[in-house]
Amino acid sequence: MEQVSFNTHHSAFGAYSSFILGKIGKGGGFVLNNVKPVENNIYIGYKREGQDLSILPFFLEKKTDTNEVFGLSDGKKYKTKEKLLKPFEEKEISRELKFASDTWRAGDIEFKIITPFWEVADPHKIKAEELRFSILPAIFAKVTLNNSSSDIKAKVFFGMDGMGRLISEATQQKLLGGAIDRRIAFACSKENGIVEHIGWNLLDNIVSGQNEKNRLGNEVLLTLEVPAHTIRTFTLVFATFQDGMITSGHDTRFAYTSCFRNIEDVLEFALDNKAYYLSLADKRDAELQESGLNKYRRFLIAQAAHSYLANTQLMLDNEAKPVWVVNEGEYQMMNTFDLTVDHIFWEMRYHPWTVKNVLDLFVERYSYTDKVIDINGRQYPGGVSFAHDMGFANMFSNSGSSVYERKDTTGCFSYMTYEQLLNWILCASVYAFKNNDFEWLKKRKHTMIECFDSLAARDLNNDGIMDADSIKCGSGYEITTYDSLDESLGRSRNNLYIAVKTWAALVCLENVFSKLKLAEYWLRSQDRAILLVNTLSGYFIEDQNFIPAIFENGNSSRIIPAIEGLVYPYIIKDYNAISSVGRYGKLIKMLKLHMQEVLKSGVCIDDVSGGWKLSSTSNNTWMSKIFLNQYISENVLNIHLPLESEKWDKVHAIWQANFSELCAVDQINSENGKDLGSRLYPRLVTSILWMDVK
Amino acid sequence: MEQVSFNTHHSAFGAYSSFILGKIGKGGGFVLNNVKPVENNIYIGYKREGQDLSILPFFLEKKTDTNEVFGLSDGKKYKTKEKLLKPFEEKEISRELKFASDTWRAGDIEFKIITPFWEVADPHKIKAEELRFSILPAIFAKVTLNNSSSDIKAKVFFGMDGMGRLISEATQQKLLGGAIDRRIAFACSKENGIVEHIGWNLLDNIVSGQNEKNRLGNEVLLTLEVPAHTIRTFTLVFATFQDGMITSGHDTRFAYTSCFRNIEDVLEFALDNKAYYLSLADKRDAELQESGLNKYRRFLIAQAAHSYLANTQLMLDNEAKPVWVVNEGEYQMMNTFDLTVDHIFWEMRYHPWTVKNVLDLFVERYSYTDKVIDINGRQYPGGVSFAHDMGFANMFSNSGSSVYERKDTTGCFSYMTYEQLLNWILCASVYAFKNNDFEWLKKRKHTMIECFDSLAARDLNNDGIMDADSIKCGSGYEITTYDSLDESLGRSRNNLYIAVKTWAALVCLENVFSKLKLAEYWLRSQDRAILLVNTLSGYFIEDQNFIPAIFENGNSSRIIPAIEGLVYPYIIKDYNAISSVGRYGKLIKMLKLHMQEVLKSGVCIDDVSGGWKLSSTSNNTWMSKIFLNQYISENVLNIHLPLESEKWDKVHAIWQANFSELCAVDQINSENGKDLGSRLYPRLVTSILWMDVK
Repeated sequence: MEQVSFNTHHSAFGAYSSFILGKIGKGGGFVLNNVKPVENNIYIGYKREGQDLSILPFFLEKKTDTNEVFGLSDGKKYKTKEKLLKPFEEKEISRELKFASDTWRAGDIEFKIITPFWEVADPHKIKAEELRFSILPAIFAKVTLNNSSSDIKAKVFFGMDGMGRLISEATQQKLLGGAIDRRIAFACSKENGIVEHIGWNLLDNIVSGQNEKNRLGNEVLLTLEVPAHTIRTFTLVFATFQDGMITSGHDTRFAYTSCFRNIEDVLEFALDNKAYYLSLADKRDAELQESGLNKYRRFLIAQAAHSYLANTQLMLDNEAKPVWVVNEGEYQMMNTFDLTVDHIFWEMRYHPWTVKNVLDLFVERYSYTDKVIDINGRQYPGGVSFAHDMGFANMFSNSGSSVYERKDTTGCFSYMTYEQLLNWILCASVYAFKNNDFEWLKKRKHTMIECFDSLAARDLNNDGIMDADSIKCGSGYEITTYDSLDESLGRSRNNLYIAVKTWAALVCLENVFSKLKLAEYWLRSQDRAILLVNTLSGYFIEDQNFIPAIFENGNSSRIIPAIEGLVYPYIIKDYNAISSVGRYGKLIKMLKLHMQEVLKSGVCIDDVSGGWKLSSTSNNTWMSKIFLNQYISENVLNIHLPLESEKWDKVHAIWQANFSELCAVDQINSENGKDLGSRLYPRLVTSILWMDVK
Repeated sequence: MEQVSFNTHHSAFGAYSSFILGKIGKGGGFVLNNVKPVENNIYIGYKREGQDLSILPFFLEKKTDTNEVFGLSDGKKYKTKEKLLKPFEEKEISRELKFASDTWRAGDIEFKIITPFWEVADPHKIKAEELRFSILPAIFAKVTLNNSSSDIKAKVFFGMDGMGRLISEATQQKLLGGAIDRRIAFACSKENGIVEHIGWNLLDNIVSGQNEKNRLGNEVLLTLEVPAHTIRTFTLVFATFQDGMITSGHDTRFAYTSCFRNIEDVLEFALDNKAYYLSLADKRDAELQESGLNKYRRFLIAQAAHSYLANTQLMLDNEAKPVWVVNEGEYQMMNTFDLTVDHIFWEMRYHPWTVKNVLDLFVERYSYTDKVIDINGRQYPGGVSFAHDMGFANMFSNSGSSVYERKDTTGCFSYMTYEQLLNWILCASVYAFKNNDFEWLKKRKHTMIECFDSLAARDLNNDGIMDADSIKCGSGYEITTYDSLDESLGRSRNNLYIAVKTWAALVCLENVFSKLKLAEYWLRSQDRAILLVNTLSGYFIEDQNFIPAIFENGNSSRIIPAIEGLVYPYIIKDYNAISSVGRYGKLIKMLKLHMQEVLKSGVCIDDVSGGWKLSSTSNNTWMSKIFLNQYISENVLNIHLPLESEKWDKVHAIWQANFSELCAVDQINSENGKDLGSRLYPRLVTSILWMDVK
């Protein structure tokens, strides 16, 4: 990727905090309990004696003279920035975003942010010291100046505003760095040649060579002397720490508070073990670099991984039991279930126990039982389902309720009862089979049966396909996760995407009930799946090779997510179910034809941009789902279009890099790549599937 | 006061949080760990059926359509504000700021914020249940609609943005209101006719009469039905709650967390006991209203009281011992000692134990011993003194260090060694004598002796007046609290203000050593005081009736704070010391002549504005010190100028009201009333002395 100027989240696992950097001219810095970019000044650069100060362009012009704030009408004027500052121009900078690192190079400086991640064990199952290794709320950075071809000694520096104290003073001079109260800090080990600065205009210190410590300062900066003809590096830790109970509705605190005393404890531990963590990051980087994926996909995976981690939050409740939350980007909804179902591919790879954790919380606290109504308003028994989410912005909602869903609504914000029911079945099946946790499956036998019954109850005409809405909708109707697309994907009832996802849930249930030795339910699941496939066959328009998105009102939208459901049988390795010569061969063949048909310019390939659009009748397209369906198309349906594929990837990658201030964005306009919603989003991590090719 | 549009802090004791409101068109809302105004929308108004919506003008035009954020290109447009909203104009609103309340009236609505305060006992000396009464982190508000002359039923409402959940859901429907996570909330008791709303554009609900609960909303609003021909009121509680360790450098948490579980606990307790708290506020209001002070002074006291409370922070350390902090307005420095000495008049009235608490912390953690140097750079033994402050913005600084002071400085930010030494002596004496705590005085005998010795060590030529700077200044010199004024007040050495304050400290020490039966030190204190008075007499310019501000370089500035020191002997009731026929009669007579001389237009009365200026040679004047010196002039020196006095008060009150967005401001330009610094400041509470007239 050639693009340089875009923001990326840099985050520790489960800390719901980020160091955001990348948009040129915009600053960056830490954000807590959110994922929105902040605009603190970040100072990264160097100065050779007698030369101008070279600096990466991550700061803003200061608007206030702090001396004036203190009533000093004759306050010193700080002229450094205007006179002696040479920020690198965009064209002078190269940037390389990898799986667990992000590196900028300009002139003789290299700045690398390192965000190691790893397979995280269930905190309940490991010892305290292991836990410290496992849920460290810190990331790393390296600042390197290559002064090897210079005869002049230099200073290289890293600093930022939004700080207020020196780390040396809290660590008996063991570490050097800056912090703001107890919550945010950066530090390095004390080494020869590294000096701490605190003040209001620290670039002046670099220029003047002075170091008067102004402890009222809002900036902290570290400088390292680099002799002529040498290369020197210093390694930083960035940490965040939030004490006390954090969430309302359900009392939880950050899990790391159980194994770290305070932020200094985090910094010291991180620096003591930096070799360990940096090697983990190198390993991650190598995995992606050596994946054989093209550079666009590597970029998309890397940016998505960063955004996902930024949204993660590992908490402990009053009984010290883990509570896992993934927050929904700019919307901040907690454990939005139709995101969870997309995150499981990542989570099964790195921390499958979080999937179980969320599924249990959905059962125990965020499930409900409803009635259903047909289009004439007649009521019927319904069954169990699950809330859309568990709250937002550190506020757990009441039992059984999401913050998203409202009655009497016909678009966004209506209930997703049926789809969340599918999501529980699919996530639970994937978790149990991928993780071989059949103990848990047995424990959840009752829920599995309830879920099957609930599915059946919502198909009044017994054709396999959902046709009754939850009574919770009032005068509205149920929607799908694709709520903000057009009607071709937005509505649940008689919906192709939902139908195939239902089939997938039934296939999963077949496997579940077989494993649980519940022969009757196994058979009933299979019967319903067959019924559904037959019904779908009836909707297949042979001469045009597609199934319409909605089986009502003469709808003729072509949609890509018709194939989305195929991923689940594939993941749980029921290869027969997804084989064109298997028991559902008819469906697989139909969907392959459908997919080949829609992957055409002017249908689901945007004829302006050349990127994927999920529905032929909407320009609102979602990156996370594009990635997922690309994976399915290639690996489940074996549609191999290598030339087209790389072109598509390039369009998608450029879109992402162009969001510049918004990190990873999900909802975009397929014509022009404009962001339409779901900014700063975790869901794009569906792209991790690309690394799972057998 | 006729002014309506200015911000005021509304704060609970010790919670370092405010609800800020008052500037028209600017919004308001809660701020935590700071005192800076926030700009949330505050909705206070009413609507009669079929009529427009009348609302107080405390909100901003919304810049984003929340539906667009969710990718809804066809999102509903919210037109309420443009079409049906009638904000009251400034001229239609009356406002009455009292000691413990702030009331707006417009049309038929009255909105009153009630901030009760009281004599707070030492948390160490009372029981848990008493403690809850004593350090409740909550304030109150009343919303009243007078619909008595209308035939049409109405709804009256209060609401705000920056919220995210309903209080009913966390209190089993006992209370109604809004909150954001665990930290900020408002609520009322559940009563007939009161309805909770949550959403993005709740004024629409008022207009439409609907109440669809949108739990993703950022606004919460309460409506109360008011039948025709009735008056109805609902009482709100505003609470804040911050859990966990808050400060760095010295681990402390909010004291209220020891007796309240969470914010709902605070809300319930406050509403259960609202009669008690509201009667306390009424009592405070009555005290000020019935004080006999003119309306300008009443306004100045009320505004100052609000700002002071906003800056207070009562914490507990790891051993559950109280740690008292007053923060320094916009600068956020903690327990700035030269503010403490001005706050003691308030604190001795309402919570004298906090004075002791701070003095002890200064001795135990923020004292140091230095050497001194003369103007030729020769070094001499120094003695004990105290740091300027204890840190800033929830960050305690290292032992013995302030965040403010730096070496090699010749103006602001230099050391205040000598003045802080005076401040400890003065505060300790006032505390011990006013509170009759001679046990404590005995415990601090050693410190008292050290302080006297330290004073003496800084007077190298033995004329009673400080003439040697602390070696900590490096190449700079010591400054006074009046650092940002001109040299007439800024420098410590040979400084009239400091000299008289030294005399006051010596008189206090006379009293202290007499009480402690340390005859030798008592005599030495008196000897030095006499010496000092004799020296000062030598500087008195008889034909011009004044003493120059600085006894060097031919300085001829006239300064008001020459008399500042007189307040301390007066407060500890050593009336002989401040009598013109007492043992220091010579000084008192001189200072009275000086004061009468400077209180002239063109000298220390600004010839443009007619307000007080502290120095004849500076337009930077400080309100807190004006109030203090007005008190001394009238009550200690018995300079009674009733006609002039009320004119001066009017100028000063108008200045304060004109700061509009900045609540109470200390440093201003005496010509035009422009704010120069020290905004949102606690120090103006010196005005409480006006209520202490015997």
